[in-house]
Amino acid sequence: MAYELYYWPTIQGRGEFVRLAFEAAGADYVDISRQDDGEAMMALMQEAAMPPFAPPFVRLGDRTVGQVSAILAWLGPRLGLAPDDPADRAWLDQIQLTFADLVAEVHDTHHPVDMTAYYDDQKPEAARRARAFRDHRIPKFLGWAEQVLARNPSGPTWLVGESLTYADLSLFQVVEGLIYAFPKAAARTLKTTPKVAALSDRVAALPRIRAYLDSPRRIPFNEDGIFRRYPELDG
Amino acid sequence: MAYELYYWPTIQGRGEFVRLAFEAAGADYVDISRQDDGEAMMALMQEAAMPPFAPPFVRLGDRTVGQVSAILAWLGPRLGLAPDDPADRAWLDQIQLTFADLVAEVHDTHHPVDMTAYYDDQKPEAARRARAFRDHRIPKFLGWAEQVLARNPSGPTWLVGESLTYADLSLFQVVEGLIYAFPKAAARTLKTTPKVAALSDRVAALPRIRAYLDSPRRIPFNEDGIFRRYPELDG
Repeated sequence: MAYELYYWPTIQGRGEFVRLAFEAAGADYVDISRQDDGEAMMALMQEAAMPPFAPPFVRLGDRTVGQVSAILAWLGPRLGLAPDDPADRAWLDQIQLTFADLVAEVHDTHHPVDMTAYYDDQKPEAARRARAFRDHRIPKFLGWAEQVLARNPSGPTWLVGESLTYADLSLFQVVEGLIYAFPKAAARTLKTTPKVAALSDRVAALPRIRAYLDSPRRIPFNEDGIFRRYPELDG
Repeated sequence: MAYELYYWPTIQGRGEFVRLAFEAAGADYVDISRQDDGEAMMALMQEAAMPPFAPPFVRLGDRTVGQVSAILAWLGPRLGLAPDDPADRAWLDQIQLTFADLVAEVHDTHHPVDMTAYYDDQKPEAARRARAFRDHRIPKFLGWAEQVLARNPSGPTWLVGESLTYADLSLFQVVEGLIYAFPKAAARTLKTTPKVAALSDRVAALPRIRAYLDSPRRIPFNEDGIFRRYPELDG
């Protein structure tokens, strides 16, 4: 039985953290909304006994799970992308939750005051938010990830233990997204976080991830997603 | 051995979601920073092998867990505040994660463009963000919680199953916080979400929670916390 992924069909967005896990594991999954333009997704959100607050969510049989961190905590062990030890799994979950916080802040750089309005309607506010994000938050988040790698008792190859986990895939996606949206600011910070930069390169070189990135399944970054390139917000 | 809670000593903030779980369960815990003004907390964040990104975090023996949702996913079963069934636990986690998203948005109503600056330095932006939050997000979040209660196969007494869980405590805290910060807007929405309002009253009436709320351990809401009463942001 294939996993069903429900997410917006034209953006990477938060769905990408789940796609990367499926792709890295070579799992059998269907990206539902890219076939029906979101119809089944909207119906499920209306009717489910356990209604997801928002996409993405994943269905397998009669099980539906929303919220990226919860999805990955569920899928991780099933896909071989989580450690066996419960304490390590809780640590993995904390790392993923921290990346989720970063993603929410990235969204707010272009929608700081009204998520129901357009970016064009909040450009001065976005400029201010983006400056604070570039100056304080990118260094803080990536600096923390660098420490997590440096303190891993198994060495700095992966974030948790000695094997690839879904958090490594997510950190790759965060780095890629920051480089897309804030090329100058991201490059500046990445010079100071060499272990993070190396991990991101390592993920990109995984054969299944490489094949995915080169395929039409990988939606290009664009200005409807979470990571958006508005040159006036970089610096 | 007592649980150690590490959080800022003068606000409810995100630490309150953890305090409420300890209090509801009658657990043995120490609110460390209220004794040493944050010294041990800062030291632990610097030195821990698994460094929390931010407070709150909880320590028990050699285990340290950060991120509210991860803390509660760990403590819930230990404190009798989570269901036994793994699918129900994953659902509980999703609900908690959704409340965590709401809490982040509440913070942004008074700090929409620069979390390192004061509210006074971003009042016009805050007014705009708060309006969107009142008009769109409070109804969406509480309306969703109302549906979760309405669709619970065990009835609308609690969010998950037929017993109190940590998500019920968190929803109580969210409702209390919204009533404090946005008394007009919260009252307007709560009229349309009677099951949410009733659950919040039910939690407040639990003997241990009642005793806690009446004790000096409950820090009053204030304008250094996440839920802040700035009358100009309500309406």
